[in-house]
Amino acid sequence: MRITLLAATAALALATPGAHAATAEDKAAATLLGGEKFAKARASLEADYDRIIQDIITLTEIEAPPFKEDARGAAYMAMLKAEGLTDVERDEVGNVMGLRKGTGGGPLIVVTAHLDTVFPGGTNVKVRREGNGLYAPGIGDDTSSLPVLLAFIRAMKHADYATRADILFMGNVGEEGPGDLRGSRYLFQKGKYKDRIKYFISFEPGEPGRITNAGTGSRRYKVTFNGPGGHSMGDFGIVSPAFAMANAMVAFGKIKAPVEPKTVYNVGILEGGTSVNSIPFATAMTIDMRSNGKPELDAEEKQFLALLQPAVDAENAARSVAKGKISYDAKLIGDRPVGTTAQDARIVKIAAAVARGSGVEPRYGAGSTDSNIPMSMGIEAVTLGSGFETFRAHSLEEGMKMNPPEDLKNMAVGLATVLALAEAR
Amino acid sequence: MRITLLAATAALALATPGAHAATAEDKAAATLLGGEKFAKARASLEADYDRIIQDIITLTEIEAPPFKEDARGAAYMAMLKAEGLTDVERDEVGNVMGLRKGTGGGPLIVVTAHLDTVFPGGTNVKVRREGNGLYAPGIGDDTSSLPVLLAFIRAMKHADYATRADILFMGNVGEEGPGDLRGSRYLFQKGKYKDRIKYFISFEPGEPGRITNAGTGSRRYKVTFNGPGGHSMGDFGIVSPAFAMANAMVAFGKIKAPVEPKTVYNVGILEGGTSVNSIPFATAMTIDMRSNGKPELDAEEKQFLALLQPAVDAENAARSVAKGKISYDAKLIGDRPVGTTAQDARIVKIAAAVARGSGVEPRYGAGSTDSNIPMSMGIEAVTLGSGFETFRAHSLEEGMKMNPPEDLKNMAVGLATVLALAEAR
Repeated sequence: MRITLLAATAALALATPGAHAATAEDKAAATLLGGEKFAKARASLEADYDRIIQDIITLTEIEAPPFKEDARGAAYMAMLKAEGLTDVERDEVGNVMGLRKGTGGGPLIVVTAHLDTVFPGGTNVKVRREGNGLYAPGIGDDTSSLPVLLAFIRAMKHADYATRADILFMGNVGEEGPGDLRGSRYLFQKGKYKDRIKYFISFEPGEPGRITNAGTGSRRYKVTFNGPGGHSMGDFGIVSPAFAMANAMVAFGKIKAPVEPKTVYNVGILEGGTSVNSIPFATAMTIDMRSNGKPELDAEEKQFLALLQPAVDAENAARSVAKGKISYDAKLIGDRPVGTTAQDARIVKIAAAVARGSGVEPRYGAGSTDSNIPMSMGIEAVTLGSGFETFRAHSLEEGMKMNPPEDLKNMAVGLATVLALAEAR
Repeated sequence: MRITLLAATAALALATPGAHAATAEDKAAATLLGGEKFAKARASLEADYDRIIQDIITLTEIEAPPFKEDARGAAYMAMLKAEGLTDVERDEVGNVMGLRKGTGGGPLIVVTAHLDTVFPGGTNVKVRREGNGLYAPGIGDDTSSLPVLLAFIRAMKHADYATRADILFMGNVGEEGPGDLRGSRYLFQKGKYKDRIKYFISFEPGEPGRITNAGTGSRRYKVTFNGPGGHSMGDFGIVSPAFAMANAMVAFGKIKAPVEPKTVYNVGILEGGTSVNSIPFATAMTIDMRSNGKPELDAEEKQFLALLQPAVDAENAARSVAKGKISYDAKLIGDRPVGTTAQDARIVKIAAAVARGSGVEPRYGAGSTDSNIPMSMGIEAVTLGSGFETFRAHSLEEGMKMNPPEDLKNMAVGLATVLALAEAR
C-alpha cells in the first residue's frame, strides 16, 4: 500500500457532528451511529479486542510472500467460515472469500484486506511484543486489517444487523509490488462476482477519516540492454550496453513531469555485468512511472519508450559494432491503472459522513491499492484505514501499537461505513 | 591470466635451429637441447604423462576460489615435498614452495604456477572426460600448469641435472582478478626470499614460444554513489544516485584512450537500488582501466577520477537536495603495476633461444600475470606457456585437450628454458 494525501477537505466543517451542513448521508450516519444496535456492535468489538490481537499474531506468523499467499489464505478462509459466512471459497488466483447475505434486492459490496506482504519467504515473521507494541515484518501492512474484518462480521451478528446488500468479505492476494494487484484484477475481470460488484472497500493500515478515493496509476518496465560482450583489454573499442543504458538514464532524468496531476518517474534497480574486466553482454534497469492522471501517465510512458532507441543508436555510433550491435528489450512488469471515485459518489459521501459523524475530519487521498482496479473501471471504490496505528511498513522493523480505546474507536468508523453502505437495519 | 600478443618478432628467422644468426644463447640452447641428459629428461616427461594428467584431475577437483586456496595449496605443498625439495613451506599469504638447491654461488630463480581459479566456492569442479578432452572450471587456468612443474623436478632428477642456480618451485595464490597478484606481491615485497630472487618464470596455459615479457598495468575502482533515497512517488524530485552514476558513465565513455601503448577502460559491473518504487540510496559501478604504459595508465586514471565530482554536481544541480545531496566514494580495488622485461634481458634471450632451438618461433606479448610485480621492480621475469592446449578459460565450459606428442614437446620447451636459465649441467 502507498497512500499520499491529496488535500484536506471540509476545511470549514467543524469536527463535531451536527455543526456540519448536514447532508442526507450525515443524517443517516447520525441515526446509525446513535442507534442501540450500533452500541451493541461497539460492545462486541470491545469484547473482541484480545481475540483480534491474537488473530493478528496468528496470521502474521504465517508468511505470505508475493505469489505465495496460499498458507495464510487457507487459514483466513477457515476463519471466514467459522464466522458463519456462506459460499466460502478460494478462487483461482488465491483470493479467499465468503458471503454475508443481505435481505435481498441490494447491491454486492466487497470488503477486503490483502493477504500478501512484501517480505520474501524465509523472513523471520515471529511476532515480538514490547510494551504496547507488536513487531514483525508484515504485521501492519496489511495483516492487521484481516482480523478486523472478522470482528466486523461478529459485531454485525451480535447486534443482529440485517443489510439490504450482500457483503463479500475477502482476503485478497497480490496487492504488493510484484503482485501487481492480481487478486483485485481477477475479482473484477474474471471472478464469479465480477458483474455484480457495485461497491468495493479495501482496508489498509491507517487512520479513520482518511479516504483514498483516487488510484495512482503506474507503469513499470525492466529494460535490458544487450551487446556482444568481451574482454576489457582484448575487445576494447566495441559497444557496451553499460554506456547505452547510461545514455538512456541521462535522457530519462531530463523528462519534465507534470506537477498536477502528480506524475513521477524513477530508476529503481540497476544491474549488469559479470566481472570487472569483462565488457558486459547485458545490463538492465528497472524503472517506475506513476501518475494520478491517465493521460499524463500515458504521455510519460510514451516519452520513456521513445528515448530508448536513440540511446542505443548513440552507443552503436560511438563505438565499434564489428562484434555486434547493442539492442534493447523493454518489458512491462507492472501496470496499475489510474482511477478515481468522485467525491460525490455514494461510497465517498457515506465514508465522509460516517467519519464526520464519528468526530473525524475526512481527508481525501490518492494511493496505489487494490481499489485502483475498480476505480479504473468506474466502479465505486475507496481504501480506508482499518484502525491500528502501524509503522515502518515494508521494513524489517515493521510494527503496530495496541491502544484499545483509540483502536476500537477507529474500527467503529470502518464498521459504520460498511453498515451505512449496506443499508443496515 | 590474460595475454595479448604485442608483435611477432624474429620474422626473418627460419624456425629451424641453425638457420638463425646464432647468439651465445642459441649456442647454449642447442648444446642443452642436443645433450644426452636432455634426452633422458624428455624420456622422464614422456613416462610421466599419465601421472601429470592424474595430478591435474586431483588438483582441479580441489576448489581454489580467490582467497580460498588453502586446501589446494596444502595438497600441492605435499606434492612438492614428495619430489624431494627442501625448505618446503607455506608463507603467510598461502604461497607454497620448496627449494631445489643448486651447486652454489648461483642466483635464485622462482618457477611458479598459480593455485587460484576465478570460480567461487561451490562451483562443480568434478572433471569430465570426453574423448581426448578434460572439462572442469579452472582445469586449464592455471591448474594444468601445476603438475607440469612437478614433472620438471622429476625430469631434472631422472637426468641427474645439477644447476648453478637455486630454483624455488612454487604454487602461488591470488593471481586472478580480486586476488590482485597478492601472492606474487608478497613474495617480492615481504617474503623471505624477496632480496634474493633474480629471475621469475610463471607458467600459464599457452603455447611454447609465447613469451610474455610485458605486464599490462591495471587500476580498478568500485565507485559508489550515495544519496538520501526515498519513495518514487512521495519523494519525487530529489536527487538520485542512479542519475549521477549515469552522468559519470557517459563522461567515462567519452575518454579517448591512446592506441599505443594500448590503453583501455571498461564499466564491468553495475548495481544499485532495492525496489522498483524506491529512489536508490546507493548505486555502484565497478570499472577497469588498463594500459601497457605507466604514464598512459596514470593519465587515464586521473581523467576518470576527475569526472566523478562533476557528474555528482550535475545531479545535485538538476534535482532537489532538500533531503540530502549525492556524494561518491571511489575505492581502488585493483592495482597491477605496468612493467617490462626488455627483449635483451637474459631471461628473454634464453626463452627465445630455447624456443628457436626447439623449432618454435618466439613471439612476445603483454599480459596481466604474476610477472607484473617483478617486472615493475626491474626484476627479470617472463610468463611462459606450460604446454597443454586449453580453452574457454574463466567459463564453466573450461577444458583442455590431451595430445601427448604435442603436449610433451611443448613441456620440453619450458623445461629447457628453466635448465638454461639455471645453468644446468
